Amino acid sequence: MSERVDVEQHRADVAELLAAFVERPVEEVPLDGDVLGRVLARDVVAHEPLPRFRNSQMDGFAVRAADVAAAAPGAPVTLPVVGDVAAAPGDPAPLAPGTAVRIMTGAPVPAGADAVVPVEDTDHGTFNRVAAPADTATTAAPADRVTVARGRAVGEFVREPGSDVAAGTVVLPTGTVLAPHHVAAAAACGVARLALVAPVSVAVVSTGSELVGPDDEPGPGQIFDANGPALAAAVRAAGGRVGLRLSLPDDPEAVRAGLERAAALCDLVLTTGGVSQGAYEVVKDALPEVTFRSVAMQPGGPQGLGRVGRTPLLAFPGNPVSAQVSFVVFLREILRAAAGLPPVNRVRAVLDDPLVSPAGRRQLLRGRWVRTAGPGASAGSTPHVAVVGGPGSHLVASMAAADVLIDVPAAATTLEPGAEVAVWPL
Amino acid sequence: MSERVDVEQHRADVAELLAAFVERPVEEVPLDGDVLGRVLARDVVAHEPLPRFRNSQMDGFAVRAADVAAAAPGAPVTLPVVGDVAAAPGDPAPLAPGTAVRIMTGAPVPAGADAVVPVEDTDHGTFNRVAAPADTATTAAPADRVTVARGRAVGEFVREPGSDVAAGTVVLPTGTVLAPHHVAAAAACGVARLALVAPVSVAVVSTGSELVGPDDEPGPGQIFDANGPALAAAVRAAGGRVGLRLSLPDDPEAVRAGLERAAALCDLVLTTGGVSQGAYEVVKDALPEVTFRSVAMQPGGPQGLGRVGRTPLLAFPGNPVSAQVSFVVFLREILRAAAGLPPVNRVRAVLDDPLVSPAGRRQLLRGRWVRTAGPGASAGSTPHVAVVGGPGSHLVASMAAADVLIDVPAAATTLEPGAEVAVWPL
Repeated sequence: MSERVDVEQHRADVAELLAAFVERPVEEVPLDGDVLGRVLARDVVAHEPLPRFRNSQMDGFAVRAADVAAAAPGAPVTLPVVGDVAAAPGDPAPLAPGTAVRIMTGAPVPAGADAVVPVEDTDHGTFNRVAAPADTATTAAPADRVTVARGRAVGEFVREPGSDVAAGTVVLPTGTVLAPHHVAAAAACGVARLALVAPVSVAVVSTGSELVGPDDEPGPGQIFDANGPALAAAVRAAGGRVGLRLSLPDDPEAVRAGLERAAALCDLVLTTGGVSQGAYEVVKDALPEVTFRSVAMQPGGPQGLGRVGRTPLLAFPGNPVSAQVSFVVFLREILRAAAGLPPVNRVRAVLDDPLVSPAGRRQLLRGRWVRTAGPGASAGSTPHVAVVGGPGSHLVASMAAADVLIDVPAAATTLEPGAEVAVWPL
Repeated sequence: MSERVDVEQHRADVAELLAAFVERPVEEVPLDGDVLGRVLARDVVAHEPLPRFRNSQMDGFAVRAADVAAAAPGAPVTLPVVGDVAAAPGDPAPLAPGTAVRIMTGAPVPAGADAVVPVEDTDHGTFNRVAAPADTATTAAPADRVTVARGRAVGEFVREPGSDVAAGTVVLPTGTVLAPHHVAAAAACGVARLALVAPVSVAVVSTGSELVGPDDEPGPGQIFDANGPALAAAVRAAGGRVGLRLSLPDDPEAVRAGLERAAALCDLVLTTGGVSQGAYEVVKDALPEVTFRSVAMQPGGPQGLGRVGRTPLLAFPGNPVSAQVSFVVFLREILRAAAGLPPVNRVRAVLDDPLVSPAGRRQLLRGRWVRTAGPGASAGSTPHVAVVGGPGSHLVASMAAADVLIDVPAAATTLEPGAEVAVWPL
């Protein structure tokens, strides 16, 4: 008979087995790649100031502030417009005293100019539209004059280099979970690649001669493999990467060979099936060096943990609901932490249904959020949950309809409606 | 001068332009593909019952219930064990009256058997482990006898076909946002491909001769293109797909050609830059058939909307913060709805900082959540926000540090700490 442990003991042992995952390697990913929701392993630093150069905040006229200082409504100042500066490559020609250039938002402010008068404060009102200069920031003068109705102080509407970000500033700190506005900041700083936390590579291995793939037609005694696709999805959703997918028959030699291959390729091997008390338990038979035990929980009691070579391995039971519950209870938090993602915390909830639970086993029942309505519904902030389906570990349908796992303590044998319970969000 | 409209008018006009997106095509995606977070366009139906066949819920002995009905502690019943049934392909041989077969969890229950006695209720206690049969569910008899200490009723520990899911049941309804436990249910039903809402394909087009890519070294007057990567990320985060990325110079003919190509390839064309009041506004020049207008908001005032051929086009301003704010205010919700995703609702928040806002323009300031602490902090459920950085639309750094956009009504000119505001989560 295998050893019996409680859920917290097995959680602790799994955490110890996988302790090395807290130190993840770094991988460089192009900014245009699959970065959303992933986590920065290093600070993103601005190597140049932002803006890179002195530029105009407005469409208007770049001037020396001193030349228009006297301008006021009723006493305007008129200057010759000696050129045109667009947001385009190149350095504009310096501005001579007593002159102005038309300047566009974002265009470099010429040397000698120290303020921008917005076009609205001039007799131009708006600009006439012309074809943009192809390859230089300054074009020939449009043979024009501008009358300025209001003076501007030195620096007005001029963005100084580094006024947004000084060179050397940390724009995005290590640990940032990347969203589009973070991508914008990195792109503005010219960062081509991001240093991200490398995901844990997981081999997802289903065992069982009765399993067939989704494109097969099952015959007598055969069933579709739910665990391969489901645990692969769970690994990805927790920030991991599926390094290998295998489905192996109940042949200890084939399983041993497959698991050794998986261990050589991946950071973690995750098996389903072959760990119970039956006569044919292929994962047990293939891995004499792994610890198999009975965890006092339902579903998901039979569990294994150990190493194949130096690679850690977790063995989950083969029933699809048991396998998913095992993932949520034992592995999800560790993979999320390894990826730098925040935990999915257990939350307190009020039970709306009575339930019966076996003594001595922690039970993880499928539940769903109840949107309470009517008087008093919003007064308490504790959410309500209802039980979905029964405790039978084969009830894939009720798992599909569930939002949470209701965590019934091992000591509880009955719970009444209104009892407070912990729930694991799915 | 272009027309002036308020934010809600422009939102309504954009929604009307993009109204066809509510009816999305369906695309089939393999269950192992990139399905997490995407939305079912059709119900997933179980075409066969689950379980597919009558199978054992326990490791034990399949019997006729009548043969062990008299069994009790102190008065056991002994039966010959005539075979072994594993979870493996094939039909087991029928069970003769007065006999038992060893049976494993999930294995098909032989015809003639109508109950399973768990191994714990027998003199076997646990099974001896043997190599699994390679290709049949029934092996030769292990020449054994079993003594049963407790009778079982007809049907006990036998899972009937369809007891989890009857054939024809909707296992996952249309509209389900896919999580790993949904993948499990679909896989258990043998669904190889899911019918998902096809994402809107968006062409993300940056304009501006001053722009360089992340692998380029910017020269004088040049800046990195932040909008291309940032809006591509925003489109993906909102459930869309980036069908094309272009960066075009300030040359109306090149822009026209690029936008026509984009319109031919994608469902929506999204441009940045070239829509303001300057002399060189290339998107305006390239698209005489599009409406350009000034929306009473800051940042993000200059906006365009229309069609290139039959394909809708939105033109956002070129400043990176303006472009991102435009996306959040005008497009995010529409793309999410098109993908079948729930809206990111605006929420009420309490302002922790005073602020000044221009009259007549709705202002969207960058803000961040404040984790209040100390007595009374958790009494009210309304979250607090603080302002990050200033109103300058070039402040990419403050956008990177923001969690929300604080929505300051057009009529407000000052707000005091404690004022309640609406915020858009980023």
